[in-house]
Amino acid sequence: MTPASLPLFQQRLEQQLTLLLDARKSSSPELCPAMAYSLLLGGKRVRPYLVYQCGQLLGASLADLDGPAMAIEMLHTYSLIHDDLPAMDNDDLRRGKPTCHKAFDEATAILAGDALQALAFEVLSSHPYQHLAAERQVQMMRALASAAGAAGMCGGQAIDLAQTNQQISLARLEQMHRLKTGALIECSVKLAYYCSPLQDEQILHHLTTFAGALGLAFQVQDDILDIEGDTLTLGKPQGSDLRANKATYPALLGLDGARAKADELYQQALRALDSLPFETTELRAFAHYIIARTF
Amino acid sequence: MTPASLPLFQQRLEQQLTLLLDARKSSSPELCPAMAYSLLLGGKRVRPYLVYQCGQLLGASLADLDGPAMAIEMLHTYSLIHDDLPAMDNDDLRRGKPTCHKAFDEATAILAGDALQALAFEVLSSHPYQHLAAERQVQMMRALASAAGAAGMCGGQAIDLAQTNQQISLARLEQMHRLKTGALIECSVKLAYYCSPLQDEQILHHLTTFAGALGLAFQVQDDILDIEGDTLTLGKPQGSDLRANKATYPALLGLDGARAKADELYQQALRALDSLPFETTELRAFAHYIIARTF
Repeated sequence: MTPASLPLFQQRLEQQLTLLLDARKSSSPELCPAMAYSLLLGGKRVRPYLVYQCGQLLGASLADLDGPAMAIEMLHTYSLIHDDLPAMDNDDLRRGKPTCHKAFDEATAILAGDALQALAFEVLSSHPYQHLAAERQVQMMRALASAAGAAGMCGGQAIDLAQTNQQISLARLEQMHRLKTGALIECSVKLAYYCSPLQDEQILHHLTTFAGALGLAFQVQDDILDIEGDTLTLGKPQGSDLRANKATYPALLGLDGARAKADELYQQALRALDSLPFETTELRAFAHYIIARTF
Repeated sequence: MTPASLPLFQQRLEQQLTLLLDARKSSSPELCPAMAYSLLLGGKRVRPYLVYQCGQLLGASLADLDGPAMAIEMLHTYSLIHDDLPAMDNDDLRRGKPTCHKAFDEATAILAGDALQALAFEVLSSHPYQHLAAERQVQMMRALASAAGAAGMCGGQAIDLAQTNQQISLARLEQMHRLKTGALIECSVKLAYYCSPLQDEQILHHLTTFAGALGLAFQVQDDILDIEGDTLTLGKPQGSDLRANKATYPALLGLDGARAKADELYQQALRALDSLPFETTELRAFAHYIIARTF
């Protein structure tokens, strides 16, 4: 079941993005259409959701949270545009629509991605915050830059490319996911924290544990659905369609082992929420929604 | 003649970059070698020079200036890596050495560029400043992000790609250069200003005028040398080798007109320096060096 707050925050984000893109569309007639195309292609908006939901819980204003919510989705979107390029994963479709380099061209897709990364930092540093000290803005910037780079998202994608057609260990697979997608999901709750008035490292720690476990559970579940989907739609025996060229949790742990791993991470995420002195019903519902999803 | 401070600041930058890359080389064994390869490929280091020289003039400490000096060179380097890609300018050589995608591969070059952009913002936001208020750090971030994006460097490269094989006006050519290279050169002096204790918008204005004129003069001179170089080495008549597929100043203004334009911009840069209440001998020497260069 979708948590009640998810469509509300999704809608808020879409509105904010649309306003911002509209105000800037004349800045580059060559790039802005491609940037807007990819940013508004839909998606669950998991990262902005975490920014809004956690930030609100910690006492941040929604108007302030618009800045980091947009910034992290821009960073995520740029990474999808570049991951889809022919030299990377070479994907023609994303969310059922042509990928950026198919809808436009390769050079435009590279530049639109580059410009979206810059726009993420511009929005984060230029947002008209009402209740936020400059020190906290600097901390948001640090968190985003560090999650985006070689020791975060880009480094994870590099491992993913390097490990294709390779046997890798469980530890290496986990490191790849923790960098490639986990870093940005953890960053979402860090941005929420720095955007709030709270100064309590314990709370930041529990939130980060929650987000880390949630992000990894999402990946394990993704690998499981990749098999179960095939079983249902293609009638092949379970487990026969382990993707040959990429390591997956079921390939390393078996399907039951992967299911146990997903459940273990789900429980870890819930325990981290239990440690927070807040009403976390919505976040629990979100964790359930993310991990129990069957699409 | 090379200004005396240029080799000193070049050396300082190389040392700082080497230390930083060394401390981080284990963060991504896949990406760090490619990032280091391109960052340490040499070059005049025009942007870091302007950060150091202008910053020192305005009273910033060299240790504080290391942050923005490294950041702006990382951003410039990432843009060169991406501009060289097959889908963009498709260049095999840069400064006489294989371009990043030739020395490594295309996916690594895309990711190394992406990670260098993130590292620029990380260095700018995490540098251990001794004398800098958080508000000024935020202003540096804003200046860099805005110069890098669709309304700056990326937007300029998009115009450059779109205008290949097209007739364009002088105004459009100038806009292209002002975005593609001018935005980052102007940003260098803005970073110097925000890294200093000064709060005087007039000074920021004169510095930006200086940098803008200098950056454009550099481009005009580049177009002129493109012809004069051929005249000397190939013995072809002056002006016969106007690049057919890209607009240039000599193509639009004639060779004499382009020379007059370069001189006009040079004089404009010097007038902006005259308006500053500082000893600007080194900056004058630098402007002369940049515009009178014959290599």
